[in-house]
Amino acid sequence: MGIRYEIRLSGAGGQGMILAGVILAEAAAIYDEKNATQSQSYGPEARGGASKSDVIISESDIDYPKATNIDLLMALTQEACDKYIIDLKDEGLLIVDSSRVKKVPEGKFKVFSLPILETAQKKIGKLIVANIVALGAIVEISKVVSDKAIENAVLARVPRGTEELNRRALEAGMQLGSKAGKTVG
Amino acid sequence: MGIRYEIRLSGAGGQGMILAGVILAEAAAIYDEKNATQSQSYGPEARGGASKSDVIISESDIDYPKATNIDLLMALTQEACDKYIIDLKDEGLLIVDSSRVKKVPEGKFKVFSLPILETAQKKIGKLIVANIVALGAIVEISKVVSDKAIENAVLARVPRGTEELNRRALEAGMQLGSKAGKTVG
Repeated sequence: MGIRYEIRLSGAGGQGMILAGVILAEAAAIYDEKNATQSQSYGPEARGGASKSDVIISESDIDYPKATNIDLLMALTQEACDKYIIDLKDEGLLIVDSSRVKKVPEGKFKVFSLPILETAQKKIGKLIVANIVALGAIVEISKVVSDKAIENAVLARVPRGTEELNRRALEAGMQLGSKAGKTVG
Repeated sequence: MGIRYEIRLSGAGGQGMILAGVILAEAAAIYDEKNATQSQSYGPEARGGASKSDVIISESDIDYPKATNIDLLMALTQEACDKYIIDLKDEGLLIVDSSRVKKVPEGKFKVFSLPILETAQKKIGKLIVANIVALGAIVEISKVVSDKAIENAVLARVPRGTEELNRRALEAGMQLGSKAGKTVG
């Protein structure tokens, strides 16, 4: 990881992007002892359907907390993908849900099309953990935080009684990411 | 409200400051049709006990999403109050929990010491809604978003089945804020 790494998690409202962003930032800052910011900005487009959550992770102080040159974009819907792809930098990583993002934009970025929603729904049995599956994939593909840090951060944030469910979701996401990383990289 | 209004919600981990910030930003952006950002930044201090969540609300675009000159600081613990008071501007508003913040810092700001935790615990019967009580007080004191907007934003974000509980918590916070506003202002 370089000095500053920018991640945007995007999808539709209700897919848990903000919580996923908070968990990722806490993994970096609390468990991996880096610096991190997590933010949402809402303009007129907030009344539309796409939802985003930005995380910046850095070894040093983060003076400018706005994501402008994204290293990794995750999109769980076509609308979010179309809207935010413009901010992904050349050579960046694009991770999309394979069932919801059928038209993958073209560019110099590397694309990972993964069955994130399907894995949450069919393998884990709860669509609501798709955000945690996504986190697992992101961490394995980008290595932006350590496996231990993301696991600790997930377990600290999810509702009591759902730890095992979320641990399995994270694990399943890591497997998706790990396999994809090997195929493409 | 001026062009740009900065709010910091602070307390201890587990007091729901991030969710409160998200709700306030969504009230402003989705229901009041302003612009808003909500963010957390975590540095080395993230491993300590104080937790914060910043919200910026503006009539126009928010170019710089970092809170640096806070208009309203809410502190639910002494530690958070001591740590973040430095960023509150002269003539700003300081809202503290009266049971947890016994040493109120001195300055040119206006202080509101309110029984937020006690109201959540005794009047509503659930300490966990203290963050929603706090939102009610903030909105009545600052008028930074409309009553209707905060109610809609709360109801859209809280877990299904807890709407009535949270509506009562918001209402109780509004009463605290409204009374305090009349006494002091």
